[in-house]
Amino acid sequence: MTSTHDILSTTGLPSFIRSRSPKLSVVGAGPGDPELLTLKALNTLKQANVVLYDALANPEILTYCNSETTTMFVGKRKGQPSISQDDINDLILRYACERGHVVRLKGGDPFVFGRGFEEILFAEQHGIATEYIPGISSAVGVAGLEGIPLTHRGVSESFWVITGSTSEREFSRDLHAAAQTNATVVVLMGLSNLAEIAEVFVEHGKETLPVAVIQNGSLPYARAVSGTVSSIVADVYHTGITPPAIIVLGEVVGLRGVAIS
Amino acid sequence: MTSTHDILSTTGLPSFIRSRSPKLSVVGAGPGDPELLTLKALNTLKQANVVLYDALANPEILTYCNSETTTMFVGKRKGQPSISQDDINDLILRYACERGHVVRLKGGDPFVFGRGFEEILFAEQHGIATEYIPGISSAVGVAGLEGIPLTHRGVSESFWVITGSTSEREFSRDLHAAAQTNATVVVLMGLSNLAEIAEVFVEHGKETLPVAVIQNGSLPYARAVSGTVSSIVADVYHTGITPPAIIVLGEVVGLRGVAIS
Repeated sequence: MTSTHDILSTTGLPSFIRSRSPKLSVVGAGPGDPELLTLKALNTLKQANVVLYDALANPEILTYCNSETTTMFVGKRKGQPSISQDDINDLILRYACERGHVVRLKGGDPFVFGRGFEEILFAEQHGIATEYIPGISSAVGVAGLEGIPLTHRGVSESFWVITGSTSEREFSRDLHAAAQTNATVVVLMGLSNLAEIAEVFVEHGKETLPVAVIQNGSLPYARAVSGTVSSIVADVYHTGITPPAIIVLGEVVGLRGVAIS
Repeated sequence: MTSTHDILSTTGLPSFIRSRSPKLSVVGAGPGDPELLTLKALNTLKQANVVLYDALANPEILTYCNSETTTMFVGKRKGQPSISQDDINDLILRYACERGHVVRLKGGDPFVFGRGFEEILFAEQHGIATEYIPGISSAVGVAGLEGIPLTHRGVSESFWVITGSTSEREFSRDLHAAAQTNATVVVLMGLSNLAEIAEVFVEHGKETLPVAVIQNGSLPYARAVSGTVSSIVADVYHTGITPPAIIVLGEVVGLRGVAIS
């Protein structure tokens, strides 16, 4: 038997393995609500031989898979050692060779801070066919579900999506630029930096700018709080909101509650 | 018979009309490929009594509706007088009263430059229950389908989405700010301003920044061209790309072609 290590140490694939038509589909699972999956993602999951899924992809979605499909959790769980990107790449290569069609199911959209493109590049370097299936990014869909449009005529005509988990220097530079415009700013994975984010906006005289923080957006147990740049750290503390959460800063947040059925 | 005008001239609704459970669902149709519709949008369309759809919503999606559903095109067609927002609002109110469940089917996501929130506000002011169903915005999904990730570790850690059809002053201010960062910039509905957009980036020393223009993204007849800030106007001219198209500016565009199956 060829060991996993032997397969992984080659950059090309032997022809007997190629004949299995190895394929990687990097698929967006959307923000959480299983109904926010696309038809294309659903059809792809039905055809998958193996599904490697992240923590932010709702596991209910896996019920769409065939009974023969192998599903494996490869996300990060609090307090447990997480699987490294190298290990995930190894799994992609191994399963694509051994089983054929591998789906990498990622929360939101795979190319929005999801390292999805890195996995595409890795697979192609190993001769595996690839496919990208977009998903609804929580950056776009979640605010609206809490009554906050990202854009609204006369209020905001653009939006800027930033990750809170990048290098501090780049994050800070983007935020300073954003705080000087009327763009709606959406920060993903930034809750632990909320105080620093608010400080940047204060520096630019935006103490009263409305801010919302939304946890588990689109799910039945979603929680949201809104306030201002000055109040939001205390607001979040009092409501007990924790990650995963998105932060929305902008005048459009003031429209929350204007329209509630 | 109560004329449409009589109904429309009231701000509340008489009780006999309310009993029909008027409802407005503002639904995102995604970027074009009918398979990029969400399951929730599909299920909502199946229940709709009336569907009012835009030019950017793929009419193939209407085949999911029941045979009893009334479908009506309310978008803009080149060379023809377009229906005003007031007229669309009138139709929403009239059909919600007369028929019950109205779906406003919009290309992309309804809250990304789609005036979807305005329609929600209008409906709620008239006592109509509302619902927002997110869709895949072409701002997020289309670039990836052409092999361009909006974010990629070490290349771009944020993206800024701007409409090219807003007031010139705001557009210009946002663009100048964006041109001074490493954010990937996505401009929707901006093809007719491409020369002015390129000029702003030249002013900030970004002549060599990669740019892509994608027409009809996600559809079988999609067309794309990439070049630099200096070359893109000529590139678009030579390929004959026309609206609807999105513009992507940023180093991530240079990754196009690195991964091609």
